[in-house]
Amino acid sequence: MIENKYSVFESELSVRPDDIDMFNHVHNSRYLDYVLAARYEQMDKNYGMSWESFKEIGFGWVVTKVCINYKRALKLGDCMSIKTGILEINEKGCAVQFEIIHKKSNKVISDGTFEYAMIDLNTGKSCKVTNDMIKAYSI
Amino acid sequence: MIENKYSVFESELSVRPDDIDMFNHVHNSRYLDYVLAARYEQMDKNYGMSWESFKEIGFGWVVTKVCINYKRALKLGDCMSIKTGILEINEKGCAVQFEIIHKKSNKVISDGTFEYAMIDLNTGKSCKVTNDMIKAYSI
Amino acid sequence: MIENKYSVFESELSVRPDDIDMFNHVHNSRYLDYVLAARYEQMDKNYGMSWESFKEIGFGWVVTKVCINYKRALKLGDCMSIKTGILEINEKGCAVQFEIIHKKSNKVISDGTFEYAMIDLNTGKSCKVTNDMIKAYSI
Amino acid sequence: MIENKYSVFESELSVRPDDIDMFNHVHNSRYLDYVLAARYEQMDKNYGMSWESFKEIGFGWVVTKVCINYKRALKLGDCMSIKTGILEINEKGCAVQFEIIHKKSNKVISDGTFEYAMIDLNTGKSCKVTNDMIKAYSI
Repeated sequence: MIENKYSVFESELSVRPDDIDMFNHVHNSRYLDYVLAARYEQMDKNYGMSWESFKEIGFGWVVTKVCINYKRALKLGDCMSIKTGILEINEKGCAVQFEIIHKKSNKVISDGTFEYAMIDLNTGKSCKVTNDMIKAYSI
Repeated sequence: MIENKYSVFESELSVRPDDIDMFNHVHNSRYLDYVLAARYEQMDKNYGMSWESFKEIGFGWVVTKVCINYKRALKLGDCMSIKTGILEINEKGCAVQFEIIHKKSNKVISDGTFEYAMIDLNTGKSCKVTNDMIKAYSI
Repeated sequence: MIENKYSVFESELSVRPDDIDMFNHVHNSRYLDYVLAARYEQMDKNYGMSWESFKEIGFGWVVTKVCINYKRALKLGDCMSIKTGILEINEKGCAVQFEIIHKKSNKVISDGTFEYAMIDLNTGKSCKVTNDMIKAYSI
Repeated sequence: MIENKYSVFESELSVRPDDIDMFNHVHNSRYLDYVLAARYEQMDKNYGMSWESFKEIGFGWVVTKVCINYKRALKLGDCMSIKTGILEINEKGCAVQFEIIHKKSNKVISDGTFEYAMIDLNTGKSCKVTNDMIKAYSI
């Protein structure tokens, strides 16, 4: 992953049989769901400002851009570690890098970046990330 | 769950954010995927005859019938325990009962039964469950 | 399908490649999604009281029970017709029967029943179906 | 879309209710499934060399990279048109650009690129795209 000033956190997840597609490996779109699951966990556990705490004050995070490289396949029964870290965060949103690593082989399965914007849950429109939020996530 | 001569086993799983639907709870069809994930784990860990070991000798299990009751909702962030146990197994297939239980409240979220048939992976057609398989699963 | 006093309506749908699982046929839980898609369309087109019109007045329909028989497999590239019809509707909810039919062969792929309850979208709790709603759906 | 020497083809698709997530819009990973559905249809209808024809001779296409921009949201009940066109194809694989357009408003919902490699279905390893295949897709 790219070295920068922000921390990288790690979550673990197992492939679920319904993630497997006709090629007998994890379906390509499910990798995005794995990264979402990792961020969801890390928001609470590592940043101390959970998805739910944003929701309670009327905000949510939506994806505005994804670039993802598929390097190797995950298969039925595999466990993975998902590392993510903020690349940049400002009032417009944030960019997060990720790496999905095969637990047994330690090889990189997939990597890339997600860009997020914060939306007002009532209007569905994007809104400014506050200084407090930026601070909580600038670790 | 129904008391009968076969063992009941238990797996744990967490709700993944992509399982959540427009009602802000787990989408109804994902419960079937949770039961599949539990059976997949238990086939290996508890019965000692894994999904992969069936696959290696050319067989797979497919669902022929599901009856499922939705009693309460699972939500984002919830953890569940999934209990399953064989109700009946013979050369034609097997019936499995299940219960999905909310980890924190210990309340039953969903229960029901799955019926499975074994198929030949080359032909896709159903085939007889052998005595050895029935024996391995009659615990 | 069971003959009774209520109409049976029909929707068409194509298998999406992401519906295919490791057995090279449609994954079992996706059939529930197909029935939901058919009901969603028919609520608007055939009953004249759409999902959105319920949502606007603060109500939604959730599944309380599903019984589904898997008789044949749907495969990549297949088109289906989904017939659904109300079996019973009263203030507590409704029961809907369905049949998924393979367009080319005209064979029944799957059939069964869904039971639904109406919930208040603000509280998430079940509530009474009104006489006007029962009337609109009693065709 | 980027103007280049290859044709752009178009498929139509409707949002399925199970595509909707907690934000009441189409879940981000489902857009990848929509593009797959469009390519699957266009391979047969527009290129005359279908997914199945590759499969019959032992080949399949897997995604190696995706870059996707989410510009607007698709919602329950929406219909879309999915335009895709080859940007480059050679013996190593191909790059495909896409645009998902909202049918009613004609606005661009999402765009981006997919990169694909061809794999040998028996070994699961990538293999060379033949001249005949390149020719069929160079339209």
